[in-house]
Amino acid sequence: MAHLNDNYLKLKAGYLFPEIARRVREFTQANPAAASNVIRCGIGDVTEPLPQSAIDAMKAATDELGNRDSFRGYGPEQGYEFLRGAIAENDYRARGLAISDDEIFVSDGSKCDCANILDIFGADNIIAVSDPVYPVYVDTNVMAGHTGDALDEGGYAGLVYLPATKENNFIAAPPVHKVDIAYLCFPNNPTGAVATKEQLQAWVDYALANDTILFFDAAYGDFIQDAELPRSIYEIPGARDCTIEFRSFSKNGGFTGVRCAYTVVPQSVMASTASGEKLPLHSLWLRRSTTKFNGVSYPVQRAAEALYSEAGKAEVSALVSHYMGNAAILRDAAREAGMQVWGGDNAPYIWIAAPGGLSSWDVFDKMLHEANVVITPGSGFGANGEGYFRVSAFNSRANVEEVARRLAAVQW
Amino acid sequence: MAHLNDNYLKLKAGYLFPEIARRVREFTQANPAAASNVIRCGIGDVTEPLPQSAIDAMKAATDELGNRDSFRGYGPEQGYEFLRGAIAENDYRARGLAISDDEIFVSDGSKCDCANILDIFGADNIIAVSDPVYPVYVDTNVMAGHTGDALDEGGYAGLVYLPATKENNFIAAPPVHKVDIAYLCFPNNPTGAVATKEQLQAWVDYALANDTILFFDAAYGDFIQDAELPRSIYEIPGARDCTIEFRSFSKNGGFTGVRCAYTVVPQSVMASTASGEKLPLHSLWLRRSTTKFNGVSYPVQRAAEALYSEAGKAEVSALVSHYMGNAAILRDAAREAGMQVWGGDNAPYIWIAAPGGLSSWDVFDKMLHEANVVITPGSGFGANGEGYFRVSAFNSRANVEEVARRLAAVQW
Repeated sequence: MAHLNDNYLKLKAGYLFPEIARRVREFTQANPAAASNVIRCGIGDVTEPLPQSAIDAMKAATDELGNRDSFRGYGPEQGYEFLRGAIAENDYRARGLAISDDEIFVSDGSKCDCANILDIFGADNIIAVSDPVYPVYVDTNVMAGHTGDALDEGGYAGLVYLPATKENNFIAAPPVHKVDIAYLCFPNNPTGAVATKEQLQAWVDYALANDTILFFDAAYGDFIQDAELPRSIYEIPGARDCTIEFRSFSKNGGFTGVRCAYTVVPQSVMASTASGEKLPLHSLWLRRSTTKFNGVSYPVQRAAEALYSEAGKAEVSALVSHYMGNAAILRDAAREAGMQVWGGDNAPYIWIAAPGGLSSWDVFDKMLHEANVVITPGSGFGANGEGYFRVSAFNSRANVEEVARRLAAVQW
Repeated sequence: MAHLNDNYLKLKAGYLFPEIARRVREFTQANPAAASNVIRCGIGDVTEPLPQSAIDAMKAATDELGNRDSFRGYGPEQGYEFLRGAIAENDYRARGLAISDDEIFVSDGSKCDCANILDIFGADNIIAVSDPVYPVYVDTNVMAGHTGDALDEGGYAGLVYLPATKENNFIAAPPVHKVDIAYLCFPNNPTGAVATKEQLQAWVDYALANDTILFFDAAYGDFIQDAELPRSIYEIPGARDCTIEFRSFSKNGGFTGVRCAYTVVPQSVMASTASGEKLPLHSLWLRRSTTKFNGVSYPVQRAAEALYSEAGKAEVSALVSHYMGNAAILRDAAREAGMQVWGGDNAPYIWIAAPGGLSSWDVFDKMLHEANVVITPGSGFGANGEGYFRVSAFNSRANVEEVARRLAAVQW
């Protein structure tokens, strides 16, 4: 008799965003008149048009496929050289960071990469995440059998949770005890916090001392405005020997519907076999990619490449400026409403303390029902997110200005 | 200290196609004059232009992303309704097969799906594959820790290999003993064999009697010419209760570089928990999809949808006819050269017995060096593939006619 993966049964009720979608659907069905009034600042999905340079490149590449002489079938699973080279050159070498083309693995999304990377690790690693945390890091470890059961107080047995609280400015320091793998995400989803070079250096030093692998999720790296803050962990000496970095075109290039991202696996990152031998993870990830993946759509890779053209860079910069302008408006509006606010200065997310002792879902429901604005309850990101909520800056300027007005009108 | 997945170390030397690529590269570097003369009938990659209906739909959808009002960000992870509906209606319901839209999961490739499906199963299942077999089925089970070490005689300990030989016309019957999961692939890669309804019924009956799950890979289903042969396993009574089917637009629509496929998980397919309870796999696969995947590129989904338009269907039909015409030419040429030939009548692959007692790789090297034609050595697909080679019909007509001429000229 075929057995299913029992680890899936440990997962607590649906992933955060489906639950949000369910509540919004219930509200709009019960209040059809309000439905068209709802503004979504929940899920971090972009709203602005795809850059024209990406559109043009994608259409030209699609036309190439229409001619026998320029037709392309299977590409390299790791991505075409033209894109791997553009990424390594622009995002790393132009900033003085020694990343070679063959250390770039092009994929269809950072969510997939953050999940799939676990394939190349053993089942016995001690894994640390921050709390609050992007749920995918946790859920994929549950599904892979790296945890025990869900705990009554939130979270899962067997994972090491590092509290990110207002006391530490939502940036957890490395733990006292040893962990084998640690997830870092800066600019942070959900809190909008960004680690300084000194804070990341502490993590890299910890990792090197303990043979820990760091997963560094930099999906929002381009939103950093402060030139002193690191946009890649490879700005930190030693990081090349202990860190796998994940980046995406979803947010800076508006690619959430187009699907392209990449993972950096330096040749120098090693992990241990059962017998204690250290081997490079690069060859394992390459093997995984070639065996379980068939590469990203060719026109999509051309579209991503176009983001590195002069025109593309200007368009990416304009998109980032747009969303960061939104963030400033939302941040200021929440402050004027008397709220305690974090994030939004180097990240497209605003993290707000729930006023008046409300719970995160209380705020969600109040905002939905009274302001017709969808936010994300902080408790959906972990026990330490309770009492907070996240507002996404991914929206049109008009919507954001309207959200600011509505925030001011709600009685807390 | 972080531990890697030791199962990866069990994998035998590179995946078949990288090894072929290496030998071709060595040959062309040593014989630069012959390089431009090489015709590739090795990897099953399409060569003909993408259908115009797909191109037009993809470009129109890309343009949609350039306008704020028609912009789309994240789509449903399982695929857009417009595509799931078109698939279920055209590939199933129009043929009298009861598959609902929500049983279709759109993905970026069948290779990925065949690999990822293992996520939702436990580690203790007994798994059967045919021999010869598409290497991805085997390698992904090795990587997931479902096997023991590689065996000297080929294959891996712990897997059940079902010989597909000329004695059984390359179609293995269900085993005498119980297995929990069995991979079937018809039209078969590499042998080109296609199971009859009676043969599939025997498999379905076996699966229902033993609570076995069948993985039915129908990536080449559209190449079947004989109306009596089943194009989907759901034509077989009972299959809805035991089978997950994989299909792809890669070959029939020329999408190997565009990337779109789908998996059918009927609501009625169940597997057992550790405590013996039977639960539907549909909800587990949905959970996997929403947690570890972000959906297929929107313009790509529109391109796939266009293959179901009247124009698209005609273009798909013309592509299939082109490649099947190639297959007939290759099959006849091999027969005229005195070879024993299978496949090629309902499949785009020709399976040929190596003449004169040569090994599979002997034929590979001889064909490469003397005819400058790349074939695929049968031994790369398993121990029972030794003494055979596969010729792919995915090529231009001119190339195929030239391959036929060269086949006739080689002295065996």
